[in-house]
Amino acid sequence: MSATFPPLARRLDGLQSSAIRDLLKLTSRADIISLAGGLPDAELMPRDRIAVAADAALSDRSRLQYTESPGWGPLRDVLAARESARLSRAVPVEEIFVTHGSQQALSLLSEVLLDPGALVVVEDPAYVGALQVFRAAGARIVAVPLDAEGMRLDVLRELLATGERPAVVHTVSNFHNPGGVTLSPERRRDLANLAEQYGFWVIEDDPYGELWFDRPSPEPVAAYSPNVIRLSSASKILAPTLRAGWMIAPVQVCRGVELLKQGADLCGSALTQQITADLLSDTEWLTAHVDSVRQVYGTRAKALVDAVRARFGDRVSSTDAAGGMFVWAEFTDGTDAQALLARALEFGVAYVPGNAFAVSTDYTHSMRLCFTTSDAATLDEAVARLAKAHAATPAQP
Amino acid sequence: MSATFPPLARRLDGLQSSAIRDLLKLTSRADIISLAGGLPDAELMPRDRIAVAADAALSDRSRLQYTESPGWGPLRDVLAARESARLSRAVPVEEIFVTHGSQQALSLLSEVLLDPGALVVVEDPAYVGALQVFRAAGARIVAVPLDAEGMRLDVLRELLATGERPAVVHTVSNFHNPGGVTLSPERRRDLANLAEQYGFWVIEDDPYGELWFDRPSPEPVAAYSPNVIRLSSASKILAPTLRAGWMIAPVQVCRGVELLKQGADLCGSALTQQITADLLSDTEWLTAHVDSVRQVYGTRAKALVDAVRARFGDRVSSTDAAGGMFVWAEFTDGTDAQALLARALEFGVAYVPGNAFAVSTDYTHSMRLCFTTSDAATLDEAVARLAKAHAATPAQP
Repeated sequence: MSATFPPLARRLDGLQSSAIRDLLKLTSRADIISLAGGLPDAELMPRDRIAVAADAALSDRSRLQYTESPGWGPLRDVLAARESARLSRAVPVEEIFVTHGSQQALSLLSEVLLDPGALVVVEDPAYVGALQVFRAAGARIVAVPLDAEGMRLDVLRELLATGERPAVVHTVSNFHNPGGVTLSPERRRDLANLAEQYGFWVIEDDPYGELWFDRPSPEPVAAYSPNVIRLSSASKILAPTLRAGWMIAPVQVCRGVELLKQGADLCGSALTQQITADLLSDTEWLTAHVDSVRQVYGTRAKALVDAVRARFGDRVSSTDAAGGMFVWAEFTDGTDAQALLARALEFGVAYVPGNAFAVSTDYTHSMRLCFTTSDAATLDEAVARLAKAHAATPAQP
Repeated sequence: MSATFPPLARRLDGLQSSAIRDLLKLTSRADIISLAGGLPDAELMPRDRIAVAADAALSDRSRLQYTESPGWGPLRDVLAARESARLSRAVPVEEIFVTHGSQQALSLLSEVLLDPGALVVVEDPAYVGALQVFRAAGARIVAVPLDAEGMRLDVLRELLATGERPAVVHTVSNFHNPGGVTLSPERRRDLANLAEQYGFWVIEDDPYGELWFDRPSPEPVAAYSPNVIRLSSASKILAPTLRAGWMIAPVQVCRGVELLKQGADLCGSALTQQITADLLSDTEWLTAHVDSVRQVYGTRAKALVDAVRARFGDRVSSTDAAGGMFVWAEFTDGTDAQALLARALEFGVAYVPGNAFAVSTDYTHSMRLCFTTSDAATLDEAVARLAKAHAATPAQP
């Protein structure tokens, strides 16, 4: 008799492989310019500096051994210093927890903070990695739409006024994936106040905050309240291969996450965590490195947005791309972005249709465009192809 | 209002930090010889070879990027070749899934294979990392005792005869942690047959199989049936910092684990996985390296067992330590190992009392002794201190 696995079929409902991931498999053809990806540019990652750090890290055999579940001590120390500066208070090392990418923080937090059926508020459109985790935890999910200033707190307030009591509100506060927008300083303070007033947790998911182009990101939501758990990561500024994410949270939350981490995978890698500590603490080098990444991404973002505006005019409205990795663009002429995709692929360009990120709204006319891995000329060519595909598509009813 | 986390208090019941971990914090004093640890010896880890591999790995920028959830392709290829040899069949790469240490495989498998309340059979004494995961999954746990030939299948058969139907039977097939014993070839075949007859999964947890001292470990249980999911790891033969575990499982199980891995932490590190692939595929070097680890551990194991037998005679019965990292020893004179520990610490030696691994039996008189991180003379001194502590302790009623 074959062994069976009863829970799997049910879990597949909540855990479908993301549409984006499936699309990426289709768009790796060499003749397609992909704006569909969501990866930082490997050419900008500090390979040589990582190699020096790896060599230095291996001088000490303790870095070959198992390490502590909350993370390699020297990395936690560096993060505590960085976050103290970011949050304008002395963050003790006990409030720093290193995870295997910030996705693991989301996953472990959802186990610590959520009962099945608990209400989780997400943004619409949403970061799909968070959606996947909250759905797997059996949460009831309500979406609050974004506008140009980030999460619409008026809609959140209406929800609270109906008596709904979220356990968690999740926000990508800076340069939203996929929405491109940043939560305004006023809304940050207001969101923190609502969290304290109604007793919910805010998970401030901030992988992109350092990738600002014109002016630094606003103070974190976490600067306004201890009810805010802040997540960040080395993946977008250094390299995803380090698998170094982190969480700043009250000690009792860290303690709960620690118990779960022991069961999940015991601990992280002292080698990659020491490399991360080395690079993050080399502040002069780091400043220059992150500046150069900002400059390249900023140039690409501008090239993409300019091309969209030049070729589509008022038929497309797009975000400004003030930082991060993504532009969110919406057809104002009724074009169905999902329907256009097949034609776009024929013309040699790919993007992710908005409905891949939809929670309550369907974002039929929207698309996410990633500008990180193509140069300005290629981005312009991509938009030219998209314009041809659009012109070749019969007008929508 | 402070945010709360309702699930946490409940989860703490199932997820207590292991008694071993707490004990380790107490026993790191310099004047204590610890046999309580469970770590491989960092001095034997191939630091220089890892440094060469790290440098080579960083020659290709793809190793800085996110990688596939089931693992870095070249590592899966190497593992498929190794496991094909181990299992005497062609193992396709689709049946290989790389995890963040084999603890992550246990954790993700428990989510894929277990409904809350599902019956899981473990060994008694048990590997606590597995117990922790199965308890967190809400499984009903029944323990089957070990004897010198491993899991007592007569007890498992009795359980099945009462109508009990496990979803999973977990076994540490080689050099059990903490029990020290190895499942005999006859029982391997019989366990695989029972799995097929009754339709349950066997999780064959095998981190120690290559650390044999006198003769190679028997054919894996997984060689006898597709109902067996085999786990192994680079932590004990190379270095834990690589965080490279793996699972060999039917494709549909791998697919379920892949969906969960995406939510859990997206993917592993292409850097540490490429280092692992490099070392595992350098077969001439690997053979010599693993031989040298075997030789050192074999010498230490013999020193420990000889010292126990010389100093305690028939007051202690211990396993032979034919491989792995642990000796399981039982006082035959009624000594309470938990009670003795406080006195042992005074005399400068630490071990883990058997009750830390107990499921149904309490193992009051047993202890786990780890021989990996002390040389022969230190191990002899440790046992001398233990004998003094024992002599200074009033006889038990």
